[in-house]
Amino acid sequence: MDVRGERLRRVRLSFLPRAEAFLITSPENRRYLSGFSAEDVSLTESAGALLLTRKEAFLLTDPRYQEEAKVGQPFFEPRIYQKGLTAELKELLPLLGVKVLLVEPRYVSLSFCQALRRKLPWLEIKEAPPIVERLRERKDEAEVKLLKTSLVIAEKIMLEVSRQLRPGVSEKELCAQIIALSYRWAEGPSFPPIVASGPNAAKPHAEPTARKLRKGEPLLIDMGVKYRGYCSDITRTFCVGEPDERFVKIYRLVLAAKEAAEKKLAAGVPAREVDLAARAIFRKEGLERHFWHALGHGVGLAIHEAPALSYRSRKRLKSGHVVTVEPGLYFPDWGGVRLEDMVLVGEEGLLRLNTLGFLEL
Amino acid sequence: MDVRGERLRRVRLSFLPRAEAFLITSPENRRYLSGFSAEDVSLTESAGALLLTRKEAFLLTDPRYQEEAKVGQPFFEPRIYQKGLTAELKELLPLLGVKVLLVEPRYVSLSFCQALRRKLPWLEIKEAPPIVERLRERKDEAEVKLLKTSLVIAEKIMLEVSRQLRPGVSEKELCAQIIALSYRWAEGPSFPPIVASGPNAAKPHAEPTARKLRKGEPLLIDMGVKYRGYCSDITRTFCVGEPDERFVKIYRLVLAAKEAAEKKLAAGVPAREVDLAARAIFRKEGLERHFWHALGHGVGLAIHEAPALSYRSRKRLKSGHVVTVEPGLYFPDWGGVRLEDMVLVGEEGLLRLNTLGFLEL
Repeated sequence: MDVRGERLRRVRLSFLPRAEAFLITSPENRRYLSGFSAEDVSLTESAGALLLTRKEAFLLTDPRYQEEAKVGQPFFEPRIYQKGLTAELKELLPLLGVKVLLVEPRYVSLSFCQALRRKLPWLEIKEAPPIVERLRERKDEAEVKLLKTSLVIAEKIMLEVSRQLRPGVSEKELCAQIIALSYRWAEGPSFPPIVASGPNAAKPHAEPTARKLRKGEPLLIDMGVKYRGYCSDITRTFCVGEPDERFVKIYRLVLAAKEAAEKKLAAGVPAREVDLAARAIFRKEGLERHFWHALGHGVGLAIHEAPALSYRSRKRLKSGHVVTVEPGLYFPDWGGVRLEDMVLVGEEGLLRLNTLGFLEL
Repeated sequence: MDVRGERLRRVRLSFLPRAEAFLITSPENRRYLSGFSAEDVSLTESAGALLLTRKEAFLLTDPRYQEEAKVGQPFFEPRIYQKGLTAELKELLPLLGVKVLLVEPRYVSLSFCQALRRKLPWLEIKEAPPIVERLRERKDEAEVKLLKTSLVIAEKIMLEVSRQLRPGVSEKELCAQIIALSYRWAEGPSFPPIVASGPNAAKPHAEPTARKLRKGEPLLIDMGVKYRGYCSDITRTFCVGEPDERFVKIYRLVLAAKEAAEKKLAAGVPAREVDLAARAIFRKEGLERHFWHALGHGVGLAIHEAPALSYRSRKRLKSGHVVTVEPGLYFPDWGGVRLEDMVLVGEEGLLRLNTLGFLEL
């Protein structure tokens, strides 16, 4: 059976006990089920939605995406609306005999719900659990291949940019180059690249500035691309010129934490234990409080998705999970080091998806 | 009085009769009032919100944006939350004595509202009219200056790219160059650039493809950048090599429609009449149905904002409106021509913000 048909079957199994129809407005869920690749223009300009019932599946969109919508066939019948999604639902839901509609609560606005209520006062709108998100957690072979390709492109860009590192080059220039190459070699960045030099490398959300690279300072680059919708995510930290003792010590510690975490990583292991394995390495050196974010996150059609590799997580890892492993140590007066790879969780352990190595120190 | 203080005063005048507090989650409204420039990571990852009461004004955000949040002072007191916005509101709203909270219905998700209801069952959540959007419609002098700078950068990119036009160059390559320059010279594109050659130029929402430019075909480029948050938007249509009679005729017609519309444009004029003035030119040639979108739209912190220059609009233009004027003619078998400038509406007529001209045919 086609993978799309199988995904659809499993979504129906989950939602049909709850409602007669399920409206899917998350762009990633929409793409996962239908292949429809259009991206929402903005928070308030959606490129469309999927509507599922027991028998039917529609891809609802506006005339701009008419051509693209055909990609959903044969599973999804395209329906092009002229007057907006709620007007279309007002016509369609009564025809389909829908009395209870499941919606994705994080992906519908209050104004959308109110408009629907005004148009169809008898309709019961119910919040869906993360049905499609749960399916998306475990990647199949074809998805792993796409993620790998996305990562190969990101690594190629990382390599290319690492050749330009010299004192005087600004964070912004490097960032512009990363973005340009992301569009040239892929569909664009999977998130706004972080290019942070010196003390900026200690900021958890560093926006690239006009600051120029200086000798002996750390330079942290965190970036990724989208390839056929699939996101890559990689971080490397460099040193312009000769690294000093401090840099070497911190870099090695972060690498050791990464290796400790990866040793833990396998199907069946609680996600929190993996995070704690990395944290333990830092604790031994009294540096635990300088690692101030979670160890990693799932990655797929969304740059951040389940499962989280966090000490707060209560989930166990499963084969088919693809997660980032990205420990870091940060010192506001000096900078920071973060090293990030993407790995596939298997029954026996992990498969590293990266091929790019680390500094030899 | 500082412009921020005055904006805040006017927002309070509008919302205080409706509720004790107003939560602002639209990224553009947030920036307009506070200067906070962080952008939302995705539909479900907000960079923060503003909370206004009669006396207080807070900028609520998470630790990533701690530094950036200071920009709101002295009008906005930064409050950094660790556990998310709804948890922060659960603490803050009772302290402030808020019983009725106004929210922006297009910028809060159903899950946000439900979480707030669970945490504060006694709170009445009310939908706000577009209070800040209405203020944003009329630009002050400083805003016009920023829009002009944004447009100057976009025109510079348009010129630069127009020098690369020759048979064999692909739409994608040109698009990647536009994006790279947008990040180099500004904060990035204001929307995904359209680079559409030959028949693709007739598609209302053309995504750049690997298609290569051919001699004698139209090439439509629609792009813009963000400069200190302000969006520019410009379209030019080129011809690779010698334009034929058909191209010349269509180009001149579109230019004539643009001029007819601009002659109409002044404060007090109904927006629909401006659209209809352009449409009348096409009607005379029997080509009205080949102009299949509205004539233009307001532009500012958002790429699309009020007022719309549409035959469906019931608004009158006011001085301080900045709108695009972008008539076009499209033929699916051949391609299309669209020409777009940005203009400032004044009491006596319009001020064209562009300096870039048109093809001499």
